[in-house]
Amino acid sequence: MRNKRFVASLLAASTLLAVPGSLFAGEPDKTAQIIDEGLARSEAQILAHELLDQIGPRLTNSTNMRKAEAWAVEKMQKLGLKNVHKEGFDFGRGWDLISSDVRMTSPRPIELTAIPVAWTPPTNGPVEAEIIVAPISKKEHFDAYRGQLNGKIVLLTIPGMGDEPTTPAFKRLDQSDISKNDEIDLPSFDPGAIERWRKRSEFAQELDDFLASEGAVAWVKKARRDGKLLHGEGSGYEVGKTPKLPGIEMAAEDYRRLARLAKTGPAPKLTINSNVRFVDGDTQGYNIIGEIPGSDPKAGYVMAGAHFDSWLAGDGAVDNGAGSITILEAARILQETGVKPKRTIKFVLWSGEEQGLHGSLGYVRRHLVAREGEEALTPGNVYREWRYLFPVTAKPGYSEMKAYFNMDNGSGKLRGIYAEGNVGAERLLRSWLAPFGDLGASSVVAGETGGTDHVFFNAIGLPAFQFIQDPLDYGARLHHTNIDTFDHLRPDDLRQAATVMAGVLMAAANDKEELPRKPLPEPQSASDPFKYDYPETD
Amino acid sequence: MRNKRFVASLLAASTLLAVPGSLFAGEPDKTAQIIDEGLARSEAQILAHELLDQIGPRLTNSTNMRKAEAWAVEKMQKLGLKNVHKEGFDFGRGWDLISSDVRMTSPRPIELTAIPVAWTPPTNGPVEAEIIVAPISKKEHFDAYRGQLNGKIVLLTIPGMGDEPTTPAFKRLDQSDISKNDEIDLPSFDPGAIERWRKRSEFAQELDDFLASEGAVAWVKKARRDGKLLHGEGSGYEVGKTPKLPGIEMAAEDYRRLARLAKTGPAPKLTINSNVRFVDGDTQGYNIIGEIPGSDPKAGYVMAGAHFDSWLAGDGAVDNGAGSITILEAARILQETGVKPKRTIKFVLWSGEEQGLHGSLGYVRRHLVAREGEEALTPGNVYREWRYLFPVTAKPGYSEMKAYFNMDNGSGKLRGIYAEGNVGAERLLRSWLAPFGDLGASSVVAGETGGTDHVFFNAIGLPAFQFIQDPLDYGARLHHTNIDTFDHLRPDDLRQAATVMAGVLMAAANDKEELPRKPLPEPQSASDPFKYDYPETD
Repeated sequence: MRNKRFVASLLAASTLLAVPGSLFAGEPDKTAQIIDEGLARSEAQILAHELLDQIGPRLTNSTNMRKAEAWAVEKMQKLGLKNVHKEGFDFGRGWDLISSDVRMTSPRPIELTAIPVAWTPPTNGPVEAEIIVAPISKKEHFDAYRGQLNGKIVLLTIPGMGDEPTTPAFKRLDQSDISKNDEIDLPSFDPGAIERWRKRSEFAQELDDFLASEGAVAWVKKARRDGKLLHGEGSGYEVGKTPKLPGIEMAAEDYRRLARLAKTGPAPKLTINSNVRFVDGDTQGYNIIGEIPGSDPKAGYVMAGAHFDSWLAGDGAVDNGAGSITILEAARILQETGVKPKRTIKFVLWSGEEQGLHGSLGYVRRHLVAREGEEALTPGNVYREWRYLFPVTAKPGYSEMKAYFNMDNGSGKLRGIYAEGNVGAERLLRSWLAPFGDLGASSVVAGETGGTDHVFFNAIGLPAFQFIQDPLDYGARLHHTNIDTFDHLRPDDLRQAATVMAGVLMAAANDKEELPRKPLPEPQSASDPFKYDYPETD
Repeated sequence: MRNKRFVASLLAASTLLAVPGSLFAGEPDKTAQIIDEGLARSEAQILAHELLDQIGPRLTNSTNMRKAEAWAVEKMQKLGLKNVHKEGFDFGRGWDLISSDVRMTSPRPIELTAIPVAWTPPTNGPVEAEIIVAPISKKEHFDAYRGQLNGKIVLLTIPGMGDEPTTPAFKRLDQSDISKNDEIDLPSFDPGAIERWRKRSEFAQELDDFLASEGAVAWVKKARRDGKLLHGEGSGYEVGKTPKLPGIEMAAEDYRRLARLAKTGPAPKLTINSNVRFVDGDTQGYNIIGEIPGSDPKAGYVMAGAHFDSWLAGDGAVDNGAGSITILEAARILQETGVKPKRTIKFVLWSGEEQGLHGSLGYVRRHLVAREGEEALTPGNVYREWRYLFPVTAKPGYSEMKAYFNMDNGSGKLRGIYAEGNVGAERLLRSWLAPFGDLGASSVVAGETGGTDHVFFNAIGLPAFQFIQDPLDYGARLHHTNIDTFDHLRPDDLRQAATVMAGVLMAAANDKEELPRKPLPEPQSASDPFKYDYPETD
C-alpha cells in the first residue's frame, strides 16, 4: 500500500515538473510513466541474478566474460534496441580461475584463504615449499635477498598489524557530504609522472624475472584489506608479458600468521595448487552497444555506460554489475514506456575498465578524437600515455556526442550528478534531475571524479558525467573483493537508479538545448581541463 | 622516550596510591614494580604467538587442546607457580578438523567458503549431491519437506539479505558507555524456561534423526555473520549423542547464492569433503590450575581465571587466548616482582566454557557447593539445570574463596570491574583499582554480566567479577570467527590488562578486609540473587 501511494504522489509531482514537450493532456507524461515502470515493475533483480549468480565474475577476455557478452547482446536485442553490436579494442589474453587450494602443512595444518593473482601462470598441480618473508617493493631490495630464494615461496608484503575499523562500513550520504564536492579542483601537471609510471610498471616484470632467476617457485602478497577479504587483482594480460611465476594473494590474517611463524622459525611449509588457464585466440576486448534511434538524424546522440568487466574474487556485483544492470534496466524502462527521443540514446557496456579504461578509451579513439603518435601505443601503456599526446584532433563523431552518463560506484541509489568541472552544464543537468528530487536524486555538484569510464570523454572536453551515489559499503569491503556478490546489492537502490537514469536520458535526448563542452586539451598547460593525477584505475 | 616518561609518571602516581602494607622506604613499592614489569617488559606477545600461532585453536578435548593443556602446565611450572595441576570434569568426545573442501560444481564451478560444524561426522571422502533449500527450525516444519530430501544436501537456514553494518566494527568505551552498566538488573524467574531449553536441545537431535531417516546426505547452515566470516560452532560432544549427518556452515554470501540459484533452478550441485575425526579415550575436560601460595594458611585464596578452550574457525585469539595469556602474564609479573601475598593467589585456565561453562562449573561443584540431586545431571543438561536444584549446601572450600576475577571479553584494555550486583564489594574493588586510574582502569559499576566463567561463582553468592573491557571489534567480527587470530589482538591493551590484573590480585590477596558475599541461592524466589535468563553461552 505504502508503495502505491508513494508512486502516486510521484506521478503527481512529476507531472508538474515534467520536461517540456513530453506532456500529453489527460494521460501521465513520460516521466511519470518512467517512474511507475522503474519503481513498480523493476526487473533489476532478475537481471542481477542472471548476470551475477548464473554467469558470475567477468574478468576481461575470460571465458565467463565471453558468456556475459553474449548474454548482454541477447538482452539488448530482446529489449528491441537497434544496432546492437560488439565493438573491439586491443587488449590481450583471457585468464580463467578454475580452482585453487593453499594450505600450510607445517608446523601445523591450516587451510589458508587465498586466491591466484589474475594472469599469473598455473602451478600445474600442487607445489610444496618453505616460505621466506622477503618484502620487496623496489629493485634496490633485490640484493638483500639474492641467493636466498631458491626453491622458496616468497612472501613479498610487509606483514603489518591487524586493522581497527572505527568508521561504519555502510554509509549513506547526507547533504553536507554531497556539498563537499561542489568545488572544482585546480588542474595540476606533474612532468615526471609518465617516467615514474613507466618505471613502476616495469618493476612488476623485473620482480617476476628476479624471482624466477633466483629459483623461487611462487610468490604471495598480502590482501590489502583485513577480515578474510581477497581481491586477486593482477596485471600481465598483455600478449608476450605473461609472468613466469605463479602468484597468490592471501588473506591478511593468514599471511601475517605465516610471517610470525617464519620469524620464530622453523619456516612454515605451504602447498599451493593454482589451477588456472589462459584463454587465447581472440585478444580483442569488446564493448557491447545498443540504441534507441532518435527521430532527428542531425540531433546526435546521448549515451549511458557502465563497465561490464569485473575482477574475479567475487561475482562483480557492485563493481560493476550494478551499473551494467542499471544501464539495461534503464533501456527496458524507456522501451516499455515507448519513448521516441529526438536524439539517439546509446547504451554501452564497457570491457577492460579494470585494467585501465580500455573499452571507453577504445571508443574515444575510434569515434571521437585522434592524438598525434597514438599508433605506437600498446595496451600496456595506452592508459597512462595516450593523454599526453598532442595535438588532439576531433573526428566527425566528436560533434555528434551530446552527453555521456556513467555509473560505476556500486549499487547505492543515485543522489545527483558530478558536473566534472563543466560548471556551464549545471543548469541543464539540474533541470533534468528535477522530477527525481522526491527520489533523492536532485544534487548537481561541480567536482570531478576519476578512475572510470567517463574520464577520457571528459578529458577531451565532452560533457561526460559520473552519478553521485550513496556509497553504502562499496569502498569499505566490496570493491574488488570476494564478497562483491548479489546479496550486497540493494535492490531498492537499483530500481531507483535505473528510474533516474532512464529519466535523465530521456530528458537529455529531448531537450531543445545542448550541454556546453569544455575545450579540446592542449599540452602541459595550467589551464588544461583534466587532472593528471588520476588514481591507478577503479 | 614517551613510554619511559609515562612509566615514570605512573611509578610516581602509584607510590602515592599504593596499597597499605606494600610500601618500603626508599624503594619502589610492589604496585610500582608491577606496573614497570607489566608495561616495560611484557611477554604477552610471545605467549600469544606460542599459543595462537604455533598451537592454534583449542576446541575442548581436541588434539590441539591437549597440546595447549601441556603447554600451559609447562608455562605455569616454569613461572615457579606451585601446586600446578590439571583438574578434570565430565565432558565428552574430542573432535579435530583436519581439512575440508566445499565446492559448487554446477551450474558453474565455485570454491565455497565453508567449515564443518564441530562434532558432526566426516563425509569419508567427497560427497556430491544436489541441494534443496528447506528451512527447518522446529518439528512442525518436518512435514513440509518429507519425501523430498533423499540424496540431497539440505540448506536449513532462511537465506535473508546482505547486512548493512552502520556502526563501526572497532570501538573503545567512553565514560558514558561504562556508566550505563552502573545499575543492578532486577532478578527475574521464568518457570517455563527449563522445559523450553530441553525441547530446544532435543530438537537438534530430532532434526538430525529426521534428515538421516529421509536419506539426506549432509546439511548446511548459513554463517550468522556476513562477509565470509565462519564460526563452525556445534553441539553433539556428549558420548552417545554424536550426530548422524555431516553438517557444514557456509559463508552467508555463498549460502545465499546457492539459495537464489535453487529458486530459479536447476538446483545447484555441491561436493563436500569434510575430513574430521573424533578423539576418544579420555572424555574428561581439564582445567589447569597453579598458585602463588599465601603466607597465612587461614587467609583463604583469591583467584583469577579465563577460559582456555576456543572454537576452531580461527585461532581463538580474542576468545579467549587474550584472557588466558593475561592470566599467565599476570602470574609472571607477580613472580617477577617477588610478591609474597597473605592469601594464596590461584590462576586458572578453564576448559569446556564454550559448551556451557563446564570447567568453572566443575570447579564449583568439586570445591564449593553441592546441590540436591545433581548426581543425575549429564554434561548435556548440567549447564541449564544445575542452577535450579535446591537446597544448596556449602562445602568447606566455600569459605576459603575470597574473590574471583574473570577475563573473557577480548583483548581490549581493562577499564574497571563489574561488581555483578554485589554492591557491597564496590568500595574495596575501587580501592584496589585506584593505582590503575592513569592506565584507564578505574571504574566499578554495579551491573551483572553473563555467559562466562564467573557466573556460577556469582550465582552461589561468592564475590566473583568480570572485568570491564574496551570492546574493540570483539562482538562485531571476531567472536568465534575465522578471523579471531593473533593480529586482531591489541598488544598494548594486553600488557595493560595483565598489569592491572596482577595489581588487583596482589591487592585482593593482601587487603586486611575481605569482600562481602551474597547469600546462597534459594528456590524460585523473587529475591533470588542470580538471574535465570542467562544467554546461551558466550
